[in-house]
Amino acid sequence: MDKVKVSIAGGSGYTGGELLRLLLFHPNVEINQVTSESNYGKLVSKVLPNLRGCTDLKFTGIAELEETDLLFLCLPHGSSMKGIDNFKKIAPKIIDLSGDFRLKDKDEFEKWYKEPHVNPDVMQEFVYGIPELHREEMKTAKYISSAGCNATTTILALHPLFKNNLVEEDKTVVEVKVGSSEGGKQSSFASHHPERSGSLRSYKPTSHRHVAEMIQEMSFGKDIKIHFSATTTDSIRGILATSHVFLKEDLAEKDIWKLYREAYGKEPFVRIVKEREGNFRYPDPKILSGTNYCDVGFERDPYSNRLVVISAIDNLMKGAAGQALQAFNIMHGFDEKTGLEFPGLHPI
Amino acid sequence: MDKVKVSIAGGSGYTGGELLRLLLFHPNVEINQVTSESNYGKLVSKVLPNLRGCTDLKFTGIAELEETDLLFLCLPHGSSMKGIDNFKKIAPKIIDLSGDFRLKDKDEFEKWYKEPHVNPDVMQEFVYGIPELHREEMKTAKYISSAGCNATTTILALHPLFKNNLVEEDKTVVEVKVGSSEGGKQSSFASHHPERSGSLRSYKPTSHRHVAEMIQEMSFGKDIKIHFSATTTDSIRGILATSHVFLKEDLAEKDIWKLYREAYGKEPFVRIVKEREGNFRYPDPKILSGTNYCDVGFERDPYSNRLVVISAIDNLMKGAAGQALQAFNIMHGFDEKTGLEFPGLHPI
Amino acid sequence: MDKVKVSIAGGSGYTGGELLRLLLFHPNVEINQVTSESNYGKLVSKVLPNLRGCTDLKFTGIAELEETDLLFLCLPHGSSMKGIDNFKKIAPKIIDLSGDFRLKDKDEFEKWYKEPHVNPDVMQEFVYGIPELHREEMKTAKYISSAGCNATTTILALHPLFKNNLVEEDKTVVEVKVGSSEGGKQSSFASHHPERSGSLRSYKPTSHRHVAEMIQEMSFGKDIKIHFSATTTDSIRGILATSHVFLKEDLAEKDIWKLYREAYGKEPFVRIVKEREGNFRYPDPKILSGTNYCDVGFERDPYSNRLVVISAIDNLMKGAAGQALQAFNIMHGFDEKTGLEFPGLHPI
Amino acid sequence: MDKVKVSIAGGSGYTGGELLRLLLFHPNVEINQVTSESNYGKLVSKVLPNLRGCTDLKFTGIAELEETDLLFLCLPHGSSMKGIDNFKKIAPKIIDLSGDFRLKDKDEFEKWYKEPHVNPDVMQEFVYGIPELHREEMKTAKYISSAGCNATTTILALHPLFKNNLVEEDKTVVEVKVGSSEGGKQSSFASHHPERSGSLRSYKPTSHRHVAEMIQEMSFGKDIKIHFSATTTDSIRGILATSHVFLKEDLAEKDIWKLYREAYGKEPFVRIVKEREGNFRYPDPKILSGTNYCDVGFERDPYSNRLVVISAIDNLMKGAAGQALQAFNIMHGFDEKTGLEFPGLHPI
Repeated sequence: MDKVKVSIAGGSGYTGGELLRLLLFHPNVEINQVTSESNYGKLVSKVLPNLRGCTDLKFTGIAELEETDLLFLCLPHGSSMKGIDNFKKIAPKIIDLSGDFRLKDKDEFEKWYKEPHVNPDVMQEFVYGIPELHREEMKTAKYISSAGCNATTTILALHPLFKNNLVEEDKTVVEVKVGSSEGGKQSSFASHHPERSGSLRSYKPTSHRHVAEMIQEMSFGKDIKIHFSATTTDSIRGILATSHVFLKEDLAEKDIWKLYREAYGKEPFVRIVKEREGNFRYPDPKILSGTNYCDVGFERDPYSNRLVVISAIDNLMKGAAGQALQAFNIMHGFDEKTGLEFPGLHPI
Repeated sequence: MDKVKVSIAGGSGYTGGELLRLLLFHPNVEINQVTSESNYGKLVSKVLPNLRGCTDLKFTGIAELEETDLLFLCLPHGSSMKGIDNFKKIAPKIIDLSGDFRLKDKDEFEKWYKEPHVNPDVMQEFVYGIPELHREEMKTAKYISSAGCNATTTILALHPLFKNNLVEEDKTVVEVKVGSSEGGKQSSFASHHPERSGSLRSYKPTSHRHVAEMIQEMSFGKDIKIHFSATTTDSIRGILATSHVFLKEDLAEKDIWKLYREAYGKEPFVRIVKEREGNFRYPDPKILSGTNYCDVGFERDPYSNRLVVISAIDNLMKGAAGQALQAFNIMHGFDEKTGLEFPGLHPI
Repeated sequence: MDKVKVSIAGGSGYTGGELLRLLLFHPNVEINQVTSESNYGKLVSKVLPNLRGCTDLKFTGIAELEETDLLFLCLPHGSSMKGIDNFKKIAPKIIDLSGDFRLKDKDEFEKWYKEPHVNPDVMQEFVYGIPELHREEMKTAKYISSAGCNATTTILALHPLFKNNLVEEDKTVVEVKVGSSEGGKQSSFASHHPERSGSLRSYKPTSHRHVAEMIQEMSFGKDIKIHFSATTTDSIRGILATSHVFLKEDLAEKDIWKLYREAYGKEPFVRIVKEREGNFRYPDPKILSGTNYCDVGFERDPYSNRLVVISAIDNLMKGAAGQALQAFNIMHGFDEKTGLEFPGLHPI
Repeated sequence: MDKVKVSIAGGSGYTGGELLRLLLFHPNVEINQVTSESNYGKLVSKVLPNLRGCTDLKFTGIAELEETDLLFLCLPHGSSMKGIDNFKKIAPKIIDLSGDFRLKDKDEFEKWYKEPHVNPDVMQEFVYGIPELHREEMKTAKYISSAGCNATTTILALHPLFKNNLVEEDKTVVEVKVGSSEGGKQSSFASHHPERSGSLRSYKPTSHRHVAEMIQEMSFGKDIKIHFSATTTDSIRGILATSHVFLKEDLAEKDIWKLYREAYGKEPFVRIVKEREGNFRYPDPKILSGTNYCDVGFERDPYSNRLVVISAIDNLMKGAAGQALQAFNIMHGFDEKTGLEFPGLHPI
């Protein structure tokens, strides 16, 4: 089979580096070019230490990108929407990992991002990049906007409930616990080890941008609220979302099991994790590093109509590079798991 | 001034050991006896490694307790209610750090603890041990039941709001992030380092016992709900509570500032922490290790009537030994900060 | 190609579980049986949480082992030497991951293990399991004893120096920094998270058993000393060995480069890591989790004849299951990297 | 008693901040001024989050320092030697916490620091700041240069051995494991949490500057070697030094016990830690955070003439601010433990 020729714009950051790692081992991919302005001309293996001995690639500059089959964009916020016209000339297919094209509505973008969208006409051309929600569209898509990491964790937890109109619209509360890699590769005093290690930092109690994606994907024509907060932990990778929803009617745990089995029973990357005992009886990002899984579990509150839904991912995988590769596989008719087989380590 | 002679029943666990550390440096205390069945006869400094060079005390057995001015109970769950008649003969004053006497209502106890209370008549004799709520009663109290660690963190965050009837009664959601010392000194596979380190474990998504204390202290005659979940993190000490309440009327941040200043402006151990910038702009248990502070902060959600209240403590201090010593100081008319002056370390 | 049918005796511990993970994804292997006495009859995926969705295998008992092509032994210390006669009847080929058959000399075994060897006649039948040293013997071996994790890290660092008679025999000092998974799956107060997390514990300042392997493999007929100490860190996986050797003659860094290139230039799993700058300019186990690499680097002391050699591995991979699988590949003529391609994650 | 009026030049870094914390609670100290160029005019409690509610001090500039009884210098490398003439005019007594005046010999300084000393004449005026070695000189000293953190840990471990001429001069190997606070408050990509957390980085395999102090203090006229390496761990505070010395004559453990008891039996801040069992049977920095202790233990190698000496401190306390305050107490005739009574926490 002919290989798909891909390039990565922005391959030295944490997301781009992770994507590059996956693509290097993908049997149907040939890597064309990888760009990094700050590491221009350097060997990839000097910049991404886990790729020592795995590749002879060098970083090139974004201005030197040649025509290719598909272009992955792993650029800083704003760069994709600014450069999209040019990127379209380079490749007929694009998968963007930034937040620039996740929303369909210009006003929503500007409400949550507090800035104008410089290319609003293109917003509708992108398929929102969670395969479990948009697999059919992806099969024929030219442009995919890979979903936000916190949005992915939350949406996969709650989508079956909202879709089936089971929860009170205005009461959902979600708190994500996130690791430090979510902040990217740029160091700062906030990420200085003596300051950050061991901290539990309420870095975004309200107004997180990813809420806009959640509302877009789970409203189904209603006016819903997702009361969202984000706290950083001492982890590097991993997101744990604890979602509290309030059921409109009294569902037993077996009803909820059925609901999630129907939604995800055939999904290769969503596992329902809910056991009676054991250290990992509920989803825990600890054992997901390097995997593309989203684990989802739940517990009914016996004293109220609350349902607690627990979900976990590796933010650089199912929350970024892995999910983008899953979409890539769907776009090209490859087995969806290709290049994403790593099951994760335990203990780790 | 004559010193108060105190004994500790159960001094080798994490709570009892922390209390012992504080009492050894308290200028108005003389330690009479410290018990530990499993370390009977051993030097305290062989069992509590941080007390090397600080004391020549040895552990004795609980059956050998002599009469004393005040008895601290740091025993396993159930031991205080079983032995209370005997403990009353040993000391005219008792501070219990277990959950046995925190609730006033036998039915509530049995609802949340799933077991009968063996001494329900004594429940009413204990003052609930959060000084910020019950300081006046403590001044003349004989028996104090020190509050639960998760309950303390939550109650100090939300009490001013419930007391002033500002929040919708049925919608409050609270999630605590807790460290491993909360589980005590007994090792198990759940606390085995390769399993526990780096994990984010949803150990109690619903039905946590401490909810009963929260309802008892914040109901004010209404039927309130606290939708509570607890997640463990990689920390050893420290609790961070993220509380989501929904305001009945639209309060601006300055109104909420005023509310908390009125509640806690003169409190020696509650700090309002809410800054525009900085790594510690909101409460973070990282910098509270060894201190008796409860830090409280908040953020108004601009898109809804939600208020996010953030609070943090050291679970072994303000959540256990420190708060018990604060109550002790109040009972005896000592300056409330005596023995609790340590400001905490940074970085740590 | 026909697949090799293998069984694992002791598949629920950390080493056995890691080996099982690797074998499940090995294209030339069919897993026959996996035993665990304590998890008899349970689904593997209930016990090893990272294998959820990857296998339907159940644990069986060791007494029920059937004949198979090759048997991996991942049993507690002493079980292999006690049961070896029986294991030989089950399989014509055996790879033992315990310490029972690493040494060739009964007296050395008893000196370092402080107990008699119950089957000393069999000691000579095993090939010592570091492929970089014994690849040729492995190709025709029936029995392989996989090397100790600390021994592997140290030997791969120092073997080229001792082999070429470059270091003073009696002065070598080695200190390894090791993670908690090295202690196995059995929990204890020593591994209790509040005790272990954040500690730097001198758990074996002298007399570590693995020294015997180092001397066996690096003596070359001389009387050498390896002054060895082991310290535990807060990691779960990973060993960093810092080895201090004293050169007989003055070698420049380029001479040492040459030496290591000759030794390891064609090795698939040994990388020389020594760069001018960067966070990972020297070997660091942080980026080796899940990989079979041993990274080796060095620095010449400008003020003395000391050479500091730095080496790092993942103790469960190159230090146990990965190295055993590498040996398995060699025994069967498979590409040595089969099933061991994972390059590791960054950041992690 | 009149209080000593002190100022701190450089009070917003980790060392200066720790010193400020200690001084605020010292009963015989009045803090005059604290400087910080980058935080000029800000409240101390906005910059040092653990001091919230403890002080109303504001940072001033170094150019505004007024005359005072004693000046602490916590400035970046090189600033003390450049400004010493001016600092002498401000205060009759100076305690410098930088490395500028630790060495007595200009050539040694330039050998290890790779730069000229700009004020070599003043080098001899400073007393080297380890009280256990120079207590008598400190009592009448005007100028004290507080010792390096790694040097303190190593010297307190080995001084009794070198002083009594018990170890082979050229064979000592020392490796320190250090936390991230040793690198100071300035953030960089090297200290970026995703890069640093969980790493074991060989940051200084050879040529560490602190070796010069060790040689100065332990040579006793001989030509000794300290083969030193430093590795960073995931800790924030704390140093563990593992020192390997080779004994000239065969000393039993009881002889070594005697040696250390004679050296440190009356020292308030050096504890001999060597027990038969327990998680903290050897020194471990984990339980030393916030304390001024240096714990020292040892183990004789039964197979050679090696003695392994293990020592641990909190680098910001006994390795910097705590040791400086201990020296301050000695200079002024105060009880040496004043302001340094905190025993440390467990668990932490």
